[in-house]
Parts: sequence; C-alpha cells; structure tokens
Amino acid sequence: MAEEKYFQVQFQPVGKRVKVLQGTTVLEAARQAGIELTTACGGNGSCGQCQVVLVEGCLSPVKPNEKFLITEEDLQRGYRLACGAQILSDVRLHLPKESMLTGQRLQVESSLKTFPPDPFIDAVEVQLEPAALQDLRSDLTRLRDALHAQGVKDEVTASSALVRSLPDTLRENDWKVTAYLRRGEILAVRPHGEKPLGYAVDLGTTKIAAHLVDLCTGEVLGSAGAPNPQISYGEDVISRLNYAVRSPEGGRVLAGKVREALNGMLGDLLRQAGARREQVVDGCVVANTAMSHLLLEFPVKQLAKSPYVAAASEALDVPAAELDLDMAPGARVHIPPIIGGFVGSDHVAMLLACELDESSKVTIGLDIGTNTEISLRIPGSDHLTSVSCASGPAFEGAHIRDGMRAASGAIEKVRIENGRLTLTTIDHEPPVGLCGSGILDAVAELYRAGYLNKNGRFQRERPEVQEGEQGPEFVLVPAQESGSGREIVITQNDVNEIQLAKGAIHAGLKVLLEATGTPPEAVQEVIVAGAFGSFINIQSAVAIGLFPDLPRARYRQVGNAAAVGARWILISRAARQRAQEIARRAHYLELTIEPGFSRQFARGMLFPA
Amino acid sequence: MAEEKYFQVQFQPVGKRVKVLQGTTVLEAARQAGIELTTACGGNGSCGQCQVVLVEGCLSPVKPNEKFLITEEDLQRGYRLACGAQILSDVRLHLPKESMLTGQRLQVESSLKTFPPDPFIDAVEVQLEPAALQDLRSDLTRLRDALHAQGVKDEVTASSALVRSLPDTLRENDWKVTAYLRRGEILAVRPHGEKPLGYAVDLGTTKIAAHLVDLCTGEVLGSAGAPNPQISYGEDVISRLNYAVRSPEGGRVLAGKVREALNGMLGDLLRQAGARREQVVDGCVVANTAMSHLLLEFPVKQLAKSPYVAAASEALDVPAAELDLDMAPGARVHIPPIIGGFVGSDHVAMLLACELDESSKVTIGLDIGTNTEISLRIPGSDHLTSVSCASGPAFEGAHIRDGMRAASGAIEKVRIENGRLTLTTIDHEPPVGLCGSGILDAVAELYRAGYLNKNGRFQRERPEVQEGEQGPEFVLVPAQESGSGREIVITQNDVNEIQLAKGAIHAGLKVLLEATGTPPEAVQEVIVAGAFGSFINIQSAVAIGLFPDLPRARYRQVGNAAAVGARWILISRAARQRAQEIARRAHYLELTIEPGFSRQFARGMLFPA
Repeated sequence: MAEEKYFQVQFQPVGKRVKVLQGTTVLEAARQAGIELTTACGGNGSCGQCQVVLVEGCLSPVKPNEKFLITEEDLQRGYRLACGAQILSDVRLHLPKESMLTGQRLQVESSLKTFPPDPFIDAVEVQLEPAALQDLRSDLTRLRDALHAQGVKDEVTASSALVRSLPDTLRENDWKVTAYLRRGEILAVRPHGEKPLGYAVDLGTTKIAAHLVDLCTGEVLGSAGAPNPQISYGEDVISRLNYAVRSPEGGRVLAGKVREALNGMLGDLLRQAGARREQVVDGCVVANTAMSHLLLEFPVKQLAKSPYVAAASEALDVPAAELDLDMAPGARVHIPPIIGGFVGSDHVAMLLACELDESSKVTIGLDIGTNTEISLRIPGSDHLTSVSCASGPAFEGAHIRDGMRAASGAIEKVRIENGRLTLTTIDHEPPVGLCGSGILDAVAELYRAGYLNKNGRFQRERPEVQEGEQGPEFVLVPAQESGSGREIVITQNDVNEIQLAKGAIHAGLKVLLEATGTPPEAVQEVIVAGAFGSFINIQSAVAIGLFPDLPRARYRQVGNAAAVGARWILISRAARQRAQEIARRAHYLELTIEPGFSRQFARGMLFPA
Repeated sequence: MAEEKYFQVQFQPVGKRVKVLQGTTVLEAARQAGIELTTACGGNGSCGQCQVVLVEGCLSPVKPNEKFLITEEDLQRGYRLACGAQILSDVRLHLPKESMLTGQRLQVESSLKTFPPDPFIDAVEVQLEPAALQDLRSDLTRLRDALHAQGVKDEVTASSALVRSLPDTLRENDWKVTAYLRRGEILAVRPHGEKPLGYAVDLGTTKIAAHLVDLCTGEVLGSAGAPNPQISYGEDVISRLNYAVRSPEGGRVLAGKVREALNGMLGDLLRQAGARREQVVDGCVVANTAMSHLLLEFPVKQLAKSPYVAAASEALDVPAAELDLDMAPGARVHIPPIIGGFVGSDHVAMLLACELDESSKVTIGLDIGTNTEISLRIPGSDHLTSVSCASGPAFEGAHIRDGMRAASGAIEKVRIENGRLTLTTIDHEPPVGLCGSGILDAVAELYRAGYLNKNGRFQRERPEVQEGEQGPEFVLVPAQESGSGREIVITQNDVNEIQLAKGAIHAGLKVLLEATGTPPEAVQEVIVAGAFGSFINIQSAVAIGLFPDLPRARYRQVGNAAAVGARWILISRAARQRAQEIARRAHYLELTIEPGFSRQFARGMLFPA
C-alpha cells in the first residue's frame, strides 16, 4: 500500500488552513476547515456552484463536467469545481464570495401582531424543609409536598432526567428553589428569580430563524439567523432526501448537522441574554415535511419517491435531549402537525400567524421557497385548501448562471428605463451576482423592454443581446465593473429556469382556484410570506405572470410569518390548539393528479400578453 | 519517561489469557480478561477475598495487609491478594474456586401463587390500505385510522422512536401488522402473530433474577439468574455507593455494568424463547433503594451519608433506551416506588407477592440480605411498618474467613451429633468453604454442642478448639479433606461477624415490635423471603437468636418473592396499583433514632440461654 501523504490547504480570503490526505476533494477540505460551500446538487458535480480559484499548487486534472460548467476563460484563470478537484500538493485557493454560504442576509422579523401569552409553564417558588433523620422524605417527595402546599392542584410528576439533577440543585440553593411545571410535570428546578424560557425555531431548507422567548410574558429576548448547514449536502429538498436515502449514515449526518446548528444558536442567544440552558424548558420547531423528517431522523425513503408519504403528520413532543439540544432536564420540543405532502408545520405556523383560518376575506396565503406552499381560505367554509409546488431553488439563486443568495454584493433590484439599466446591490457593494428578487426584476424588465418575447426567448435582433457559450444572453454588468472581475449576465437558460419556477407556482395557484371554484378576481387578499416574498417587487411578479394580475393593494408582504407562528405556538396553549385545528381543517390537494395541472404548468411558463 | 511494557497473564483453571501493562494489578487484569473476582471491600485490600495463587512469574513484593490477611503457610504456597499484587513479568496464576463469582447457585423461583393477568397492553391486528397518490395519509395517520376502525377508543399516540421504525415495518409486512398499545400509545408494531412480551427483574445487591413474560397471559417464557456484576466494585451497598461518589465516572461505570448485564440476560431469554427484542414492550425492575439509584444513574451522595435520603421514592416509568435496554421502540421500564431509607421496591414487590398488606394474621415479612428489610402487618391497621437493618454480608459469606457464596463445594449444612460432625456441600463436591446457611448452621451447632458460650466466646478448654493465628478456632475440614487443600475453620472473628449480623436483625425486629406495641408471641406468621432465607435451617436461626423463638409452624419460607412481585407488577394493572398502595401505606421507621435500638443491638449479639 502506498504511503499516505498529507497536504496543507489554505483558503483565501478567509485565511483558514487545514491539513488533508492526498486526493481529498476541495469541497471536503473546505468542510474540514469549517467552510460551507454552496452546492445545489449535493456535491455530485452537476450544479457548478462550488467554484474555487487555484492560486498556487496542484489539483487533479480538469474533468469533462468542469469544462461544461465553467467557461473556457474562467478555466484559464484557475476556476475549478470544489466537488471534483482533488488536492495533489500543498495548495492555496481563493473562494469567490458567491461560492460561500457566509455573510448572507437573513431575515428573521415580521410585521405581524403579537399573540397574548397563555403559557403552558407555571413557575412556583418554594422553600423546603431540609432533609433530616427525623424527616427522611426523598428529595422528589419533599418537593412535591411543598408544591402541593403552594397550591399546585395537578398530580406532580418528574422524569428520571429531572430526578438526576434534583439532589444537587436543592442543596446548592439551600432548599429555596423555583419549579417550572407543565400540567404537574416538573420540567426544571432553578434558583429563585430565574425565569422559564422557550426556544422557537423556523427551520427552513435554506435558512434558520431562531428566537429566545420568555415563556411567561411572551417577550422575545433575542433573535438569530443562520444558514441551514445541511445545504452542503444538497440545496433543494429532494437532493437532501436522496443523500439521506443513499448514504448509510446519511440521515444521521444530516440530523446531526442541523441539531448542532440549533444547539449552537440557542447557546449564542442565551449568552447574549445572560441566561442559562437549564432555564429553557420548552421549544417549538416549525419546518416543511422534509426538514422536520431530517431533524427527527425519521426515515425518508417513502417521502423521497412517489407517492411521497410522510412517516407521521401528527404533532409530536420530543425530549430535547433526543434532538441533542442542551436544555433543562425535563425539556421537550414541540413539532406542530403537517398538512400533507411537503406542506409542513412551517406553513401551519404561517397560516396561524396570518390568521388565515379566521380571515373574513377570500384569501390566499403563499410562502415562496424551494418548495412553494399555497393555501386558500374561503370565508364560511370549514376548511382551507393547500397545495405544494416544486418551484425549485431558482428564486434562491440556484440553477441561475450568476445566481447567489441574498448576500453582500447581490443585485436585488433591476430597472430598465428608456434603455438605461439601473441596478441596486445589497450593502451597495460592487455587484457579484443576482439574488432572487434581482433575478425576478431582471427577467420582468427584460420582458417589459422587449428583449424577451412571450415565450421567454431572447430577441436576437436586439443589439444588447449577445451570443454566449450556451445561446443568447444579456449582459447586466461588464467584467470590469463587477466585484468578481467576471461579467454578470442573464442567459437564455436562466430565463427558462424562472419560467419553470413561475410555471409551477402559476399552475399551483390556478388548480387551487379551479378546484375550489374560485375565479381569480374573487381573491380579496394575497398574503406573501417568507424571505424571498418579502423582498420582491410585486409589480415584477405580476409582470411575468408569477402572481395573478390583481390590484396591488390586495397584496400584503408579511415577512417571516412562520417564525412568528412558531413563537405563538411556543407561548400559548390556545395557539397550539389552533395550529392543530388548522392542520386538521386544511385539505391537501395533490397537484400531480389534478387533471388541469400539466396544461396550467405549460401555460404558466409563458409571459402574460 | 520509561518505556511501557506489556506482559501476558494466564489464568488457571479457566484458561483465559490477557496482555496488560506492567504494574497492572491482578484484579484489574482479571477484569480485563472478563473474570470477576470476589471483593467485599471493593478492591481496597481489606477483605482478603480476592486471593489468587502465583504459579509462575513475578509479582510485586508482598504488602503488610497481605501478611495480615493471608496465613504464613498460604503465603509460602504463593497465595496473594489480587487487588494489591502487581504484574511485573509474564505470569501464570491459579484462581481458587472461592475467589471466583461464577458457577454460583442462583435461586430464581418461588412457591407463591400466580396473579391473574390484567394486562396494560392491547395487541390489535390491522390490515392497512397501502399508500397511494389518491390516499396520501402519513404512515402514522393511516395506522391510527385503522386502529380506531378496529375499535380502539383511546386517542392514539406514538413516540418519535416508534415513528422512526414505522415506515419500514409497515412496508416489510405488506401493511398487515399488529400494534401493541398502552392507553392508546403505540409501543411497537409487529408482524401478525407475534405476542407482546415483558421483562421482570429482581435486581439484588448480589444476584439478578430475570423473567421473560407473555404480557397477555402472564405465562413465564423463561427465567435466568446471574451475579450482579457491580460486585467487583464492592460487595455491600455502602462500598458501591462510595465508589459512585468518590470516582468521577463511578456512577456511570456502575450503571453501565448492571445495564449491560440486564440487556444480556434479556438477549439470552429471548434466544431461548425464539422471540425478538422488538416484541418486548414493558419491563419492571425491583431493587433496593441503592441498587435502583445505581441502575438509574441517580446521584447517591445524599444517599451515602446521613441522613441517607433518596433522590426519589416515587414509581418511575423510564424509556427502556435510557437504561440501554434494547427493546421495542416505545418500550418503558417501570420502577415501583420505594418505602423509605434502603427499603426499596424489591421489598414492596415481596410484600405484594406475599400479600402481607391483606393478611388476616399478625405477620412479619422479612428479607435477609446484605441489608435486611422487615415489615409488620397488624390486621385492622391501615398501614404496615418497615425497618431496614444493616446486617452486612456475613450471611452471604463475606467477612468470614472461609466464607463463600452458595456455589459448588460450599458447605450448606452442618450437624454435630454426639461430637460427630456431618457436613453437606452443594453439588456434593469436596468442601471449599461455607455459604450463608452453612455458617449459620455451624455457629448454631457449635453453640448447642458447647464449643461457644453465651457471649460467643470459644471454650478454649475443649480439645477440638485450636489456637489459630488470630485466636481460637474450630476446624470443620482438615486441609487434606478439603477441595482446595486448605483447612476450613470457623474463627472467633467469624462468630463475632455472625453475632453482629444477628444483633442488627434482632434489634430491628425488637424495635419494630416495641414501636408498634406487639408482643413477640402475638406474631402469628413470619414470612422469610430471599435466597439465604430459603435455604437456612429455621431451627438454627432460632437457636442462635436470629429469629424469635416461635413455633416452627409459624415460619414460612417463600423463596424469591421479590421476583414474583416484579412479575405481578409487570403483567397487572391491579398489582401495579396495589404496589403503589403498599408503598404509600408502609411507614418507614428509622432504627438509628429509636431510643431502644443500641441496647437491643447489644443484647441481640448474645446467644439465647
């Protein structure tokens, strides 16, 4: 057997170094260095997003897929795909901004109302008699007796984990403690004065939004956002499910990644709030069906292929320890119910926060993401109807040649007035790519200005339309003006990707309206939730036919409503009950078996006249 | 730093070999070889039980405590203490039978009645509709719906662990399964025809008795006995608690040892019964307070020192996985309540199995062990009264020069008729030592034949009483007739140990009777439970004053009643309820603070006139 050689890899501009075995891929080396690179395809060499630049040293020869996914010019300049290039010497690599998952704009707040707290948790202060030979009650019995004497009516119980912490806690606090109770179960025992806390999480495919909440008052003590670290195993839901199915330890790896992130975010929030992990007794994590399966390490084989069935759609209360969350000994995490298919508890939470279930208008609630969930409320009807469209990650910047996430330097707005192009970038940095709202704007403006026809074809006769490697394209930023030194273009393929995404959403909406006998003009309100939905220009969305042509005033952009719903469910019994009701009353409509779906999909890909 | 050297250690007659680091003790080497040696003191060099014989090679020099605990003659023959002797070369060692924990007689059965099953578990057969695009219910919803259709009235719930196993189980069994339910909670899902099973355990300080039970019929499918592997960390309860308190990982190590043993015994029972771990949905483990704390990895600092307080005395239902028991996904283990002090759930189970709580006679229930628990029932009274005496391990053969456990070659019966000695050994093997009943017999017969006086002093004027190294002693077996080639004697110290043990039990009984105003002759029945109690000669126990001088017919030896009680609690709701009642109604009397205790202890050490 040949001797194993190790080489040093240095990543710029972050300045991280790592020693790896000869033959390790750059993607794996980056992971080992703690750097997450974007990979929409899960690292199988097909998306072309994980580009790095070789500055010094030796990598394995360029592969055919790299020749296909990287321009000749970029290959000359040392661009390589991190997932395929293997390390054959000490190397120095440059990581272009658009290949990295850091520094990204993460929206965690919303404009929705706050919910009155109706807490599950009672905090009861007690002063116990110390144990003595004349009074040999066990620690738990002593605490139970004191709680009953303080007026606790429920039968007092405790888990073995709680009992494990009890003797030390009682003695360290001189027998003066506060017990946090839920329906008589002691979840934690803390010194006098500490407050019970909760942890609300919106676990998105791309982003995680987390809140630390005072369970008695509902006050938000801190908020944090972070990318979902599973991204390096696949950008969309299906690639991640496939990773979990194909690799023997896949499900465990993905669960571990996201649990670690959730636990770390909780630690950060507690540090900022000056609070302790032992105070956190309740949690609520909302997520789409796939993300909650991967968090819970549920099997996903049956979810990844037709007929795409969830292991469970019911609400679950899981011990925090089972999710590797370091919280109070008796802490549990509530996972609200899902509606059906990929329409998960995040959509339930969004519908709750928008109060779609009680709206007095014909209302559409819509959360655009890699999967787009849409629900329709008709006042007077007992139920909601929900659909899920596989809109793909184009609106998150994936599968778009110069697409990127909403990070510094991303073009977020595009205007073409009298042939004059105006761009706005995030943080006003030199442009390096396009985020979702920028792509949407660009396509809408190109269509409006006549560079694209109704079928989405570039009009080659227009002088600004140039011939690129894969057909016609439109240059938004010339190489010398861009932040990366590469030109930023919209290609024919990019337009097609947007057409596919909008076709899926359009078809979902159309079928939903037809199946319920609702004419589009009868819709009185469209609630647009989610990160992408909050930043887009509604006019552009209507212009390309992504949204129906309704008066602008009927649209309402509400920000991250799912995270708000998660907080409501965390702090309020009534809200938790109402989330159950919403899931029960929402009928899931499977689009692929609806007769009009394919036709509407095809029609939805066209631009409106 | 000197180079680390490894030496080979070979154990005879078992024939095991192990490689250990220079300086390792023989005790540790034996542990590494999977051989458990007896150590009453937990390996700190004070009990002298872990003797081994050096056949070949080099050990560290003989220490002062070895000179004290091993006779000059035996030292000459190569006898050493395994806990102190360090390995300094390749060595070959002989393990005398009496130093080993194997091949021991383990009593697991009892003569008590069987309890009518009143099972917690319902087994419901269902045939589900397969998932399809037209019917996208989640696996759990589909199963719930089918169970309700089969008449299940409770709300059907499931743990995340159950959900994790559900998709594969349903599909592998073609959607035809049996669900095991407890109050609506799905504990396991199995192929049609498999029966739900339970695991009942009496976890003793010295021995473990385990049963595999059909939960629907109560039928015992298999029984097994094994030593408690924690023995190598200390023979009595207090040395083990101290080990857990002193060593940073002590509690975890002790819990791990016993959990591993319980899981292994379950595996053996299942193999013998041709059943699967996934069928086992419920467990019941009864134990004294210290043993259940160590099993549950509860803190024991407060239990190991005055006022000796339990962390919890309440019944607990613990997920089987938390105890490292590989059972069905939703399986839990019930730990019944304790009474108080060291009077644990094993005594509750014993009282239940003997139905002491409903006896129409004035009854004493008594379980002799390292700790002896005694309860008194007075008909008409609402409560029982219970005490615990630290009788020590003398009756288990510890602290007795030639004491051993009830294994092959142990002297179990001694008679002296007209100066003629008759001995009976277990398995009729050549004698190697004395087990508890043999020691009791020997002391009683020596007293009856006048070799001992009322104070327990050997009568030196009798020619059969010889002068040993530590005072007078009586030879039961000369060296040339014994199985080990060493003479077997009863020393003055042995008699004193028995006096201490019987003094403690006598005092416990006396104080219990006095505190309840019960004259000894009013006691109508004495139920003697436990391994030692089942094999002893009641006449001998009365002769030395261990038991009160009541008509022989009032005594009833019932075998391992705690294990029987554990089975009742496992299979019957009513029994589980009744165990709760017994624990609630039993008043624990702390002997050390009772005024008459010391006086009674001193008096109890004398032999009756």
